[in-house]
Amino acid sequence: MRVPEYVITMEDTLEFAKKVHAGKPQLPLALRLIQNTGVRKRHIVQPIEKALDHPGFEERNRIYELESKKRCPGVIEEALANADLTARDIDVIIYVSCTGFMMPSLTAWLINNMGFRSDTRQIPIAQLGCAAGGAAINRAHDFCTAYPESNALIVACELCSLCYQPTDDDIGSLLSDGLFGDAVAAAVMRGRGGTGVVLERNSSYLIPNTEDWICYAVRATGFHFQLDRRVPGTMEPLAPVLRDLATDHGWDVSKLDFYIIHAGGPRILQDLAKFLDVDDTMFRHSWSTLTDYGNIASAVVLEALRRLFDEGTTMPGATGVIAGFGPGITAEMAMGSWTADAPRDMESTAIPASASYLARDFAHTTKGGIA
Amino acid sequence: MRVPEYVITMEDTLEFAKKVHAGKPQLPLALRLIQNTGVRKRHIVQPIEKALDHPGFEERNRIYELESKKRCPGVIEEALANADLTARDIDVIIYVSCTGFMMPSLTAWLINNMGFRSDTRQIPIAQLGCAAGGAAINRAHDFCTAYPESNALIVACELCSLCYQPTDDDIGSLLSDGLFGDAVAAAVMRGRGGTGVVLERNSSYLIPNTEDWICYAVRATGFHFQLDRRVPGTMEPLAPVLRDLATDHGWDVSKLDFYIIHAGGPRILQDLAKFLDVDDTMFRHSWSTLTDYGNIASAVVLEALRRLFDEGTTMPGATGVIAGFGPGITAEMAMGSWTADAPRDMESTAIPASASYLARDFAHTTKGGIA
Repeated sequence: MRVPEYVITMEDTLEFAKKVHAGKPQLPLALRLIQNTGVRKRHIVQPIEKALDHPGFEERNRIYELESKKRCPGVIEEALANADLTARDIDVIIYVSCTGFMMPSLTAWLINNMGFRSDTRQIPIAQLGCAAGGAAINRAHDFCTAYPESNALIVACELCSLCYQPTDDDIGSLLSDGLFGDAVAAAVMRGRGGTGVVLERNSSYLIPNTEDWICYAVRATGFHFQLDRRVPGTMEPLAPVLRDLATDHGWDVSKLDFYIIHAGGPRILQDLAKFLDVDDTMFRHSWSTLTDYGNIASAVVLEALRRLFDEGTTMPGATGVIAGFGPGITAEMAMGSWTADAPRDMESTAIPASASYLARDFAHTTKGGIA
Repeated sequence: MRVPEYVITMEDTLEFAKKVHAGKPQLPLALRLIQNTGVRKRHIVQPIEKALDHPGFEERNRIYELESKKRCPGVIEEALANADLTARDIDVIIYVSCTGFMMPSLTAWLINNMGFRSDTRQIPIAQLGCAAGGAAINRAHDFCTAYPESNALIVACELCSLCYQPTDDDIGSLLSDGLFGDAVAAAVMRGRGGTGVVLERNSSYLIPNTEDWICYAVRATGFHFQLDRRVPGTMEPLAPVLRDLATDHGWDVSKLDFYIIHAGGPRILQDLAKFLDVDDTMFRHSWSTLTDYGNIASAVVLEALRRLFDEGTTMPGATGVIAGFGPGITAEMAMGSWTADAPRDMESTAIPASASYLARDFAHTTKGGIA
């Protein structure tokens, strides 16, 4: 994963919020909420002064196209190299991004410009928001389950700063302005071989009747992110779903070895740890992602996973969960276990016999970091 | 499939074009091109006077949301009934639509309001345009291949009239104004059982370096469809791809029993028939869809398939192809054979032993018609 070069610290954020929204009655609460996020800094694709200016939806989208074309290839190359594959080995590209809109999606450009085969399947998803990282992992898992010889490339390109809307000043918007950051992440899921999480089962869950809790209002000025105050409380209904998923898989959700959880905000992580009866430190990769980069939408789970790789202490057979949350409200969840690098001819021994579905290797996310 | 209640005839189209673009030098050519489409009428969600007015991107999108919520449920219920399933039997909803944008996508609303299970997977695709019908079929095939006990629901909701842009008056735009129609289609793919096309193999193909031949310009006024004059000539490079796909499957692409082809326009159908060495009448379901409804984007292949069902003369074992074309330029292709209603316990005999992948039943599209 890579984050862009322009950095906004928590201090910058508070200062800009005070300046832009001076005198508004909701400002003090918004500032407290922003401070509570614990986001120390964020990275964005433009200098802050430029990001705070709204040049119109058309120009915003032009910047999105430019920046995504500039920033995705390097991250993808790293992901391919980490998985020991080349572009020609990839059978499907799942491109998730909710912060710009192009038709055709970037997949066509990537195929034309990075040496992917002309018969590479394209699955562009723009409407699952932060849950799209988990969804991409799960759809890649489905694909590799259907075609075990195949490899899937996942790209999450979230330039959240291009959805900043200067005229939105409700509490949810002010909080979001202080929470979201930009990032581009990529990961390769190999049908066979590789080091990483062997996905064994995936699942989706929609919390009933919460469609308008996280949503976009689509206007002439672009996408306006709308965040309901009830969102931070959604881990209470979701925790039992995760628990049941683990139980159905023969695992105890409180005793897994790793947890790759969407860092939507601090309350999400605190609550989920509490309801799953898990020590806070088990969510350390999500916490550090949030602290270092803010909520980077669908890229969070890929970055938290990269941190798990970098930590380098996960033992073969270790069990874990990956969970992304986003609009719907949708949770995209997967259970998997860690496998060490297995040569291709040792496949059958590398795949746990207990797996309900054919297991897949979910190889490295990229090594990236701050550019 | 269902088409909306407001009808524009070819005569209406020509008359409105003459009135709105009076005196423009490109008008005579545009009128000839529109006449050549052979589209006798189209159906749209609003009276023509209202459709020709642009109330702004926000209002357009509000109408999209309203109309999609009004029109999708009935079509979906029909598709479920035709497949002899209920909402609770569906494991994944693939919702394709490029003519409006919502986050969360309509999938969340459908799950909440039509009795689908909370763990139904959502795959919303907005960026594959007309190719998304074929893509939805292919992704459903992948999913049912991964999980043979599952059932997939495909919904194509294309309200093309909501992308009409009064200020665009280049030849491509004028032609498009006379070509596209609105429609909502749904189909169920059963993992096992049912009557219809057993998919045996699917494939995708991107014509190199044609990204900007069919694309949206995204502006404050919404999506502006841009059509390059070279698009009608794309069947020459695509025909060999389809031929190879059939050959790899052990079939002769010139001698299949049915052809479900995206009716992008008359030249697409004429050329493809010529290059595949197939009699024009073999594309009759695509031609009649085009004549009756115009180019209904991702819904075309589902409607052409419905016409194949309605014709009722396809014999078990008959071989065929489904192909959708759209931005990228992307072709989404599948090879399959017809199966008569097979009870669940007769699965293994209903699936051709020669299938490269586990075969799936692609059950009825809806019976619909003009509402």
